[in-house]
Amino acid sequence: MDAYKKAGVDINAGYKLVDEIKQLSHNDALGSFGGLFPLTLGHYQKPVLVSGTDGVGTKLLVAINAGLHETIGIDLVAMCVNDVLAQGAKPLFFLDYLGIGHLDQTQAKAILTGVVTGTTQAGVKLIGGETAEMPDMYQHGHYDLAGFTVGIADQDRLLAAKNLRTGDVLLGLASNGLHSNGFSLVRDILFKQHHYSLDDQLSGCEGDLKHELLRPTRIYVKSVLPLIEQGLIQSIAHITGGGLIENVGRILPDHLSAEFDSTKWPVPAIMKDLQEIGNLSFDDLKHTFNLGLGMVLAVHPTDVDQVTAELKKAGETVYQAGRLVPGSKKVVIREDSL
Amino acid sequence: MDAYKKAGVDINAGYKLVDEIKQLSHNDALGSFGGLFPLTLGHYQKPVLVSGTDGVGTKLLVAINAGLHETIGIDLVAMCVNDVLAQGAKPLFFLDYLGIGHLDQTQAKAILTGVVTGTTQAGVKLIGGETAEMPDMYQHGHYDLAGFTVGIADQDRLLAAKNLRTGDVLLGLASNGLHSNGFSLVRDILFKQHHYSLDDQLSGCEGDLKHELLRPTRIYVKSVLPLIEQGLIQSIAHITGGGLIENVGRILPDHLSAEFDSTKWPVPAIMKDLQEIGNLSFDDLKHTFNLGLGMVLAVHPTDVDQVTAELKKAGETVYQAGRLVPGSKKVVIREDSL
Repeated sequence: MDAYKKAGVDINAGYKLVDEIKQLSHNDALGSFGGLFPLTLGHYQKPVLVSGTDGVGTKLLVAINAGLHETIGIDLVAMCVNDVLAQGAKPLFFLDYLGIGHLDQTQAKAILTGVVTGTTQAGVKLIGGETAEMPDMYQHGHYDLAGFTVGIADQDRLLAAKNLRTGDVLLGLASNGLHSNGFSLVRDILFKQHHYSLDDQLSGCEGDLKHELLRPTRIYVKSVLPLIEQGLIQSIAHITGGGLIENVGRILPDHLSAEFDSTKWPVPAIMKDLQEIGNLSFDDLKHTFNLGLGMVLAVHPTDVDQVTAELKKAGETVYQAGRLVPGSKKVVIREDSL
Repeated sequence: MDAYKKAGVDINAGYKLVDEIKQLSHNDALGSFGGLFPLTLGHYQKPVLVSGTDGVGTKLLVAINAGLHETIGIDLVAMCVNDVLAQGAKPLFFLDYLGIGHLDQTQAKAILTGVVTGTTQAGVKLIGGETAEMPDMYQHGHYDLAGFTVGIADQDRLLAAKNLRTGDVLLGLASNGLHSNGFSLVRDILFKQHHYSLDDQLSGCEGDLKHELLRPTRIYVKSVLPLIEQGLIQSIAHITGGGLIENVGRILPDHLSAEFDSTKWPVPAIMKDLQEIGNLSFDDLKHTFNLGLGMVLAVHPTDVDQVTAELKKAGETVYQAGRLVPGSKKVVIREDSL
């Protein structure tokens, strides 16, 4: 044990961290060989498990440079559970992987506190995880995070392209800023091409850059799931890397296209600032950032009023951002407002 | 898109990799928002999902330095599925996370080929994954891997400490060398304290160091699962970080201890070499390495012959390595042979 500790791996620090997370998550079963989740199948006719894995990209480097580790775990959970929700499934449980150069208890506890907050926001159970101390792999203070979630749906009720029709309305749910995508470009523009400090404040932004950039990714599970269960949502795109263009493109059937009207919602100030400072084309912008919409729901016109009302009641900001038209899987964003 | 590519992230390279993996894994559904796995519940009375996540530690750095990426994915699958198997569950599916500084198609394809090989060996389906290109996070050519698996068991048939009795035999299944643990110590001894090259060959080892160190972790699912399903196995310890001491300790009830007799199986040459070169105590050795046993099965004495015969038929090398005695969750390894 002493030899291993001298080589840079402190197994006891790992055990201590597991104890901390057991307390934070109120789950005493953490730390066994595998995480358990009893299945209650009740109303599922043909249950199908829907799983997703994701990381948070180089938003991590912003958290690391800012020394603010409390919310990056929310991003991690969000990236995973929103993907599973987008299939029409109910996320059930979550596991995290933390790869880290040197296990600093305070830092690791802050990171995992964010993971626990995220699982609470998503209504999923944290049933396991792995913290891997890897000297020589990560630079001092650096770490990577990966998350895994499993959800459940009825096979015949999975959201699918075949549900979509001409005239369906695309409801955009407001994002909480940049979420967890495009950060290699953000860092390139702000900190490499230019020399902004994390303490600087950009025009139109509410706080300094570190807080603006680290706003946690919004978790849409609790507001959207009840509508899926009522059959009111035809399809969902979680807007991540590739922006509205790629992500809405993925949910379209061959005979439909999507038209967005960007005058219908406000593009966040941070994205306009990045466009200006980085001299980005609108094409760059729309292929990289969420433009202010973290999730897009395709809804039949007759259901729009009810869906909008329920989403607002659940705390979402909702925009009638676009609609489906006859076409060939193209996504167009009219940019008159920009 | 151009701006993002200039910032170090090539989204198209990612899409191309997904296409490669679809072919390798014969799973066209890869690349959607979430991986799907239809549940066939047939004979499960109270189904419980058993999940595990793990990485391969700094064995990665050996693969990276050797430029041999084809088997590290097998280690990744092994670390996860063996953990789930150890609970008495049948692993069903797997997802991988690859964090990488710069996406090199050839390197990434080699890594993921190993993942596909591992899932085939384990009989699980690769249903999703994430490849995250993260410039500035990883050094050039470096990457981290995390894996995630979900299995299923009947709640009442999960392996548990309450099944164990005094006199139960501890059957050790031969490991395939170091597996995926202790590599920070291994690298410290061989490459920092001393200056071995990956092309050097140690006494008693069959090949050079890069091949000896990179032997893939053995996957025990196909040989052990049929015995679990027959009710012939009382408990299982997957021997990972912490060695026999910690991992067998975790499966014991309060009133039993485990006694191993290390004359009953051969400790691999690589571990003896590391002990000598690194001037390690036996205490260091047994708390860090698997000592040649990758998995330990607790079996009632009446079932030992049948279990041993079936395991051998399935290709395992099996040792009667120890037994359970009245005690208090201690693990003792008699070391007369070392």
